[in-house]
Amino acid sequence: MAGLSEKALIAGIRARARGRGSSPLRLGIGDDCAIVRPAAGEEIVVTTDFSLEGVHFRREWHSPESVGHKCLARGLSDVAAMGAKPVAAFLSMALPRELVAARRGKAWVERFLDGLLALADRYGVPLAGGDTAQSLGPACFDIVLLGSVKRGHAWLRSGAKAEDGIYVTGALGGAAAELLALERGPQKFSGLRKAADIHPHFFPEPRLTAAAKLARTKLVRAAIDISDGLSTDLAHLCDESGLAAELDAAAIPVHRLALQAGRGAVAGSSLDLALHGGDDYELLFTARAGAPVPRRVAGVPVTRIGRMVARRGRARMTLRDSQENVIALEARGWEHFT
Amino acid sequence: MAGLSEKALIAGIRARARGRGSSPLRLGIGDDCAIVRPAAGEEIVVTTDFSLEGVHFRREWHSPESVGHKCLARGLSDVAAMGAKPVAAFLSMALPRELVAARRGKAWVERFLDGLLALADRYGVPLAGGDTAQSLGPACFDIVLLGSVKRGHAWLRSGAKAEDGIYVTGALGGAAAELLALERGPQKFSGLRKAADIHPHFFPEPRLTAAAKLARTKLVRAAIDISDGLSTDLAHLCDESGLAAELDAAAIPVHRLALQAGRGAVAGSSLDLALHGGDDYELLFTARAGAPVPRRVAGVPVTRIGRMVARRGRARMTLRDSQENVIALEARGWEHFT
Repeated sequence: MAGLSEKALIAGIRARARGRGSSPLRLGIGDDCAIVRPAAGEEIVVTTDFSLEGVHFRREWHSPESVGHKCLARGLSDVAAMGAKPVAAFLSMALPRELVAARRGKAWVERFLDGLLALADRYGVPLAGGDTAQSLGPACFDIVLLGSVKRGHAWLRSGAKAEDGIYVTGALGGAAAELLALERGPQKFSGLRKAADIHPHFFPEPRLTAAAKLARTKLVRAAIDISDGLSTDLAHLCDESGLAAELDAAAIPVHRLALQAGRGAVAGSSLDLALHGGDDYELLFTARAGAPVPRRVAGVPVTRIGRMVARRGRARMTLRDSQENVIALEARGWEHFT
Repeated sequence: MAGLSEKALIAGIRARARGRGSSPLRLGIGDDCAIVRPAAGEEIVVTTDFSLEGVHFRREWHSPESVGHKCLARGLSDVAAMGAKPVAAFLSMALPRELVAARRGKAWVERFLDGLLALADRYGVPLAGGDTAQSLGPACFDIVLLGSVKRGHAWLRSGAKAEDGIYVTGALGGAAAELLALERGPQKFSGLRKAADIHPHFFPEPRLTAAAKLARTKLVRAAIDISDGLSTDLAHLCDESGLAAELDAAAIPVHRLALQAGRGAVAGSSLDLALHGGDDYELLFTARAGAPVPRRVAGVPVTRIGRMVARRGRARMTLRDSQENVIALEARGWEHFT
């Protein structure tokens, strides 16, 4: 059986990771540690995210390229949500034996790396290290991203003030709608190997370019990425800022795929998908009332969906519907232990 | 069934991780990213290491405290091997449901954190973030360590020169000898919950203090930690430095437990355990010929075991035995895919 030894796998990754050096990365794969030297006046942001087989992806549903893309996108999205630039990625892979075996053409793990490195290349992020091991269970990937940001300028969840406007990039619910469609008919999605905007579940686009442009405006006070669903991630921002949020249902930008899904007989309305669906990887941020937030950055729409208010015993989040009814909004996004 | 929800688990970790802030860590658990601000003139080293159930530990053999200790020790050892100081740790945990359930007293994962945080406290390393997920297979931990080191002063594997002396800290083969004993009689080791020098397999001590003292001498030219076994890790150092190594068998400090194991009828002599046994977490380093390397640092012996030589077509590593025979030494340490 043709396949990859660990040595060959690491040598292959190292060869492909070479020549991608960005200036803050002083030493990449091949030593006990990598070395990152931030530029003067910058600090380092760090995030780590699992991608687990059976939890975050299924091999029978997702192409290896999609799994690799999403693995990196999750980390890049966290870097974007801090208003930072990505500096280096570290990938740890626990692989069941069969994923390094090339039964038909390229081994699964090589195609996984194709997907991951295509996205890394697009944003100039070098793969600087990681770990490899054999897994006795399902495949397990852990991605670590380091980013750099001007000292004291990172966007925190805790930075919102009462009366701030609440904004989101892009449209919401598309990834959740596509996941519903995938559950109903996986065969329709079997050929998806390359990033494309119309497949938000398979190839989500981290909002790094939009974040960089927004950072230049200096208008953002607090931010988080919408990876667990708008309601759950807004709840985090409310809690860390000690505030409540009022959303305007009519203002929430619903993804085209979520609108289509809502028309069918499927569980959950379009708005529910936009409010609670996970995996959107859009940015949620606040800016002071009346701030000249652009309507569009880096080709991505920016929409004001509500405002932050003092909590004072009221519900953490409320939603104003088209009949001007105000109802409490629960955090019903992704729960990791279920 | 009493147990921990993900929220409670993260809140518990966050509470325990608080107040451990070292100055380079500006923001810990609770945002999309943590923020690290290196001191002026310092750069950041980064390492990531898996600890997988069934591969690196067994729940029926290792106490949760030992697993937590070793998980962090692996990362700290890599930081020590760069001559760096640890700044922050990030822990990703994929947990099967039963590990967050408290059937008898404390849940397994709480005891795991006891072991990990006891070691973190000892070296003043804050837990600054990570990820949690439910595992559909065995438990999977990934530890990320950030360290800081004076710019340009990190010890690299590639820094050795011909004629450098080769040194190791401590004694070798103890962890491998204890693993052999564990395989023969696990019941003898069932009570091991606290770090102790005499249990190198269960509670290895990362050589951070020794590394800090050696860094001050400015004598170290190249370094690596001996996590995969002396022969395998020395081979890495040879390859990265483009040199060969000559070891003196009689000089290699063999751990007391390896000497005991060698006396029995068990497979492998004491010297084999010292040469090829993994998990020792001692430092292997080189210094120029005649450098005044101390015989002991931070209470740990430092032993000269050989010298680096030009490769010029000779074997990558050779071993001179007590009869002055010189034999080629193969890298026969830990292989990750077997």
